[in-house]
Amino acid sequence: MLNNAYCSDKYQYTMGKSFLESGNAERRAVFNLFYRTAPENNNWAVVSGVDEVIEMVGNLGNMPESFFEKFLPGDEYAGFRKYLSTMKFTGNIYAMREGEIAFPKEPVIIVEAPLVQAQVLETPMLCIMNHQMAVATKASRVTRATSKPVSEFGSRRAHGPWAATYGAKAAVIAGCASTSNVLTEILYGKPSTGTMAHSFVSSFGCSVDGELQAFDTYIKSHRNEGLTLLIDTYDTLRCGIRNAIKAFKANGIDNSYPYGYGVRLDSGDLAYLSTQCRKMLDRAGLTECKIFATNSLDEYLISDLEKQGARIDCYGVGDAIATSKNNPCFGNVYKLVEIDHEPVLKRSEDKIKLINPGFQITYRIVKAGLFRADVTCIRGDALSRKIERGETITIRDEFDSDKYTTFYKGTYKARALQTEVMAAGKDVSEKISLDGKRQYYLDNLSRLGASEKRLVNPHYYKVDISDTLYDTKMGLLDKIQKEIESKAISAHVSVDMLYDFIDGTMACHNGNKAAVAARGFIKAHPEMPVLFVCDHHPADHSSFKENGGIWPAHCIQGTRGAEIEEGLAAFACEEMTFYKGRERDTEQYSGFEGTNNMGESLDDKLQELGARRVYVSGIATEYCIKATCTDLLAAGYEVYLLTDALAYVDEEGHEKAIAEMDGMGIKML
Amino acid sequence: MLNNAYCSDKYQYTMGKSFLESGNAERRAVFNLFYRTAPENNNWAVVSGVDEVIEMVGNLGNMPESFFEKFLPGDEYAGFRKYLSTMKFTGNIYAMREGEIAFPKEPVIIVEAPLVQAQVLETPMLCIMNHQMAVATKASRVTRATSKPVSEFGSRRAHGPWAATYGAKAAVIAGCASTSNVLTEILYGKPSTGTMAHSFVSSFGCSVDGELQAFDTYIKSHRNEGLTLLIDTYDTLRCGIRNAIKAFKANGIDNSYPYGYGVRLDSGDLAYLSTQCRKMLDRAGLTECKIFATNSLDEYLISDLEKQGARIDCYGVGDAIATSKNNPCFGNVYKLVEIDHEPVLKRSEDKIKLINPGFQITYRIVKAGLFRADVTCIRGDALSRKIERGETITIRDEFDSDKYTTFYKGTYKARALQTEVMAAGKDVSEKISLDGKRQYYLDNLSRLGASEKRLVNPHYYKVDISDTLYDTKMGLLDKIQKEIESKAISAHVSVDMLYDFIDGTMACHNGNKAAVAARGFIKAHPEMPVLFVCDHHPADHSSFKENGGIWPAHCIQGTRGAEIEEGLAAFACEEMTFYKGRERDTEQYSGFEGTNNMGESLDDKLQELGARRVYVSGIATEYCIKATCTDLLAAGYEVYLLTDALAYVDEEGHEKAIAEMDGMGIKML
Repeated sequence: MLNNAYCSDKYQYTMGKSFLESGNAERRAVFNLFYRTAPENNNWAVVSGVDEVIEMVGNLGNMPESFFEKFLPGDEYAGFRKYLSTMKFTGNIYAMREGEIAFPKEPVIIVEAPLVQAQVLETPMLCIMNHQMAVATKASRVTRATSKPVSEFGSRRAHGPWAATYGAKAAVIAGCASTSNVLTEILYGKPSTGTMAHSFVSSFGCSVDGELQAFDTYIKSHRNEGLTLLIDTYDTLRCGIRNAIKAFKANGIDNSYPYGYGVRLDSGDLAYLSTQCRKMLDRAGLTECKIFATNSLDEYLISDLEKQGARIDCYGVGDAIATSKNNPCFGNVYKLVEIDHEPVLKRSEDKIKLINPGFQITYRIVKAGLFRADVTCIRGDALSRKIERGETITIRDEFDSDKYTTFYKGTYKARALQTEVMAAGKDVSEKISLDGKRQYYLDNLSRLGASEKRLVNPHYYKVDISDTLYDTKMGLLDKIQKEIESKAISAHVSVDMLYDFIDGTMACHNGNKAAVAARGFIKAHPEMPVLFVCDHHPADHSSFKENGGIWPAHCIQGTRGAEIEEGLAAFACEEMTFYKGRERDTEQYSGFEGTNNMGESLDDKLQELGARRVYVSGIATEYCIKATCTDLLAAGYEVYLLTDALAYVDEEGHEKAIAEMDGMGIKML
Repeated sequence: MLNNAYCSDKYQYTMGKSFLESGNAERRAVFNLFYRTAPENNNWAVVSGVDEVIEMVGNLGNMPESFFEKFLPGDEYAGFRKYLSTMKFTGNIYAMREGEIAFPKEPVIIVEAPLVQAQVLETPMLCIMNHQMAVATKASRVTRATSKPVSEFGSRRAHGPWAATYGAKAAVIAGCASTSNVLTEILYGKPSTGTMAHSFVSSFGCSVDGELQAFDTYIKSHRNEGLTLLIDTYDTLRCGIRNAIKAFKANGIDNSYPYGYGVRLDSGDLAYLSTQCRKMLDRAGLTECKIFATNSLDEYLISDLEKQGARIDCYGVGDAIATSKNNPCFGNVYKLVEIDHEPVLKRSEDKIKLINPGFQITYRIVKAGLFRADVTCIRGDALSRKIERGETITIRDEFDSDKYTTFYKGTYKARALQTEVMAAGKDVSEKISLDGKRQYYLDNLSRLGASEKRLVNPHYYKVDISDTLYDTKMGLLDKIQKEIESKAISAHVSVDMLYDFIDGTMACHNGNKAAVAARGFIKAHPEMPVLFVCDHHPADHSSFKENGGIWPAHCIQGTRGAEIEEGLAAFACEEMTFYKGRERDTEQYSGFEGTNNMGESLDDKLQELGARRVYVSGIATEYCIKATCTDLLAAGYEVYLLTDALAYVDEEGHEKAIAEMDGMGIKML
């Protein structure tokens, strides 16, 4: 396996190059690793993987430049490759303990380090933590379904050897009594378990006698070990259990056998078969013979077997735990929360999805031995100081300020959940055995209320944030919101830049120049949407002189005179083109009254675009421009008139209209 | 990472010890790795992982004895540890090619090797294959949902670094255009892709200007690469897309940029946002700017986006592929199918779950360029010889012999799906690049009918087995079934071994001796169920003299006289105790008429136990024994009388009854 510190997404390194070249690589960054919702309606997750993260971080900077050339080739990456080849981790890491119970949004790991270092660790850190927390959280659910021991044996269905080995570790932390994985035993010293597969039985020939011989052979070569015979290869009740009893008896294995003995059922109706086997074993005096059950079990099936009164002494669980079958994808994310001491966040439409900005610490409030609430603070904020001093505190629900709880001085204890595991790049973590971590988890579990441990519809534990953290988050959100509204939201409305008004039946002054100026503005502001307003009359329109109106016939649908000037037409599209005067008897001057072919009005579209500021160009100042601008202003938009990009019927009327509009508060550019 | 050839379940090694000590370790075994059903109603799966399996197999036997001591401690394992430390793989492996389309039950990998070697490879082989085939098969589904390129970037949600790296490989084989994983690039030379994350944007400060600066910085430091700007950090339409357009324009990036440019949407309504962004980009003249969409996509969401007319040019898919989210647990199993040239199988109640025994080979029949059927044969059987010679063949549906297809000589081509990849322990596999494997998959895909590629309810492709294979399987099944029926299914019926018949009101001859003999028989056959039949009368029973009957009062419910003799009572339980004569007016001699407290009759229980052969002991030969034996015989059981374990009213009557029963066909022991 290659150095797993570089099991990363390419973008960590394209970003890294930019950080380095723009002088940002060494800025102090704080990233939080946390999850938003726990799988399967669990309200919490079990932490596992921190030790492997620490080990992985230590591998950073251990590769030669030639290694980096394989995925960052080319001269332009030469400087960055050199930088990476010596880039060891020099920051600090704060993490929850393995076996800790973590609630949503609480930082499981906090990385405080130079930006580029913290950034490139994202992917390998997430894949380690997401894997182990998926498995641990599922193992916690499965083991909570029964008071009987659960053994993990899903290596064959795990996602490769790494997942098998470390997943088994996570499963043991979260309550499994043992694992079958031998590499896990090698790494953590926890004895692996297992005896035989169907192939063992059938290798003695496909026969009832072969099965008996297999059992006999196995027992004879494992006289100082647990003996579990697999009895469903051919027929559980009609030969398997009988052969097992025969083999045990023939070899003197009975309740006096000190290493334990049993049978394993791996198929069929486990409730029925276990009950029948129990009777047969008891009748034979083998009352201490354990019955192990396996076969795609999970917490739901185990609960069900227990309800049915199955006589099972130990469950073996494979794929459900090893792949976290119902929810293989654990949702830890890794988000930048502070840069050079400035809190930051990514905005989201959903308030619940908003991340908590700033350098944080989470306290668990313990009262009378039970976990009562968690609260995440900005490090050193008012609430965190009170908690550290053991003063009376009140914590509030982030989304419902009417829900709050007060803990009085002297009645509670608080524990910071994140402890420093790496300091200035050095591993300073406490080393705890796998059994120690498992015990820590079990102890934590015993301090949660029963209703919070339910497999279905658990009671929700209080997980809050300090006022300072809340205010920081809302302040940032408010700031970015205001900034977006104040500056960025502009649109350009181009009115009646049509040939009949430029060189046709109603040619105005400055028409061609206005079109050129409008085009120049569009090209200078490529990000700004352009909305075209167009007179678009039927041939018999009531505004025409021949029909009793005051204007010459103009902008008749389908004629050149109704077309947008060609230099501008390139920027037009159906959705952004609004027609007025389309009906015989409708006389419309204001672009505000136009609609596009989807029936949307100009105002609809401006709203949809989020536009607050509207730049106006077009023809003619005295009529349609003035009417459009007046309506826009009345509707609450900031209106800017592009005075170079206007045409008019006559100079004097133009000047007068400009002055009028200026007086109304329309800005002239 | 430790040597992954030993990422194994403990039982591989406990079995191994038994194989070695019983002289079976070197027997020639054949194991098949195959799956039974494909996930998500797919009718097929994509093969990936074979190269890693070959590499893993090569690692066997590369560890010192001290390594094995860590999980196989103790003196009794010393010999086996020594054996393992030099146990290299010396067998042959036949496997499908990576990128092959595999149907259910077809051997994906066949291992032909000394039993102990083949056995210990089970777990590491399965975890490699199950992982990669889960990911490849899911990637195939996702990429079939669209004609647009799909990029894999799920490393962060994969189950650890191994799963991330090799999962990305599997995803590329099964149709993904690229992956973000850099280790995958290092291993396979396929360039990884990616540009920026939200943290890149927010590291420039949480502001609209910061976003523009981030885009500008990125473009300036990546002038010779693809440029994809992530535009949803704060507000996609109101600042992200606008800042992107500004930054592209300011840096002269437009349709002439040779490395490609684009924007990425990672949240919100992707159909709406992509449509709006497309318009804004087009209006700005950036018509070649690609729109990438990401955000928990899978084949269902992509199909939906396409139906809605989303303007998306490329999809990025993370967790759905990387964890094979809906079906993380791929069902490859590894089953012994032959030992020393004798086919074997594990029995199953469900015929469809039965494994195919014997050393096999699968042929794919191709006609007019399209795949038409697969058929698995025993190597060298009649059908396989015909296929190899290109003769006319007829293949039949295994479960419906009315369904068959004939392929005429000269009209079809056939290809063996399993090729030799290891021969006598040496890697003889063909080395193919990752792109070559991907191309092989795409070529295979083009040869499947359209209806077989549907994501929902695909048409079922013909997957058959040869007559020889069918007969072998059914023959084995029949043999084991007959063996179970013929030998193993015995029960012991003990009639009226009650104190009133031994030393009470109706004491018979030989009562105590009979009880001792019956007990001896029970202890000698501990696996055999014992059913007790008991007279169990009310005090006013009509058979008693005082009530007009012919017997003294006996076996009155609740009295010692109705109790089973104590040496036998230890083997009795409620379910297995059948009472007769419980009602005042019911006179019953035959145990056949008794019922237990659950209302089941003796016959019911014998049926349930699968008993065919019944051993009878008890009291009294002339009455209840004779009646019970007669009924048992009539009901079709083989009846054996334990003549030492009988008591009787008088010697002569006993002899006469024995002679009568002997004449009826009841066997005397």
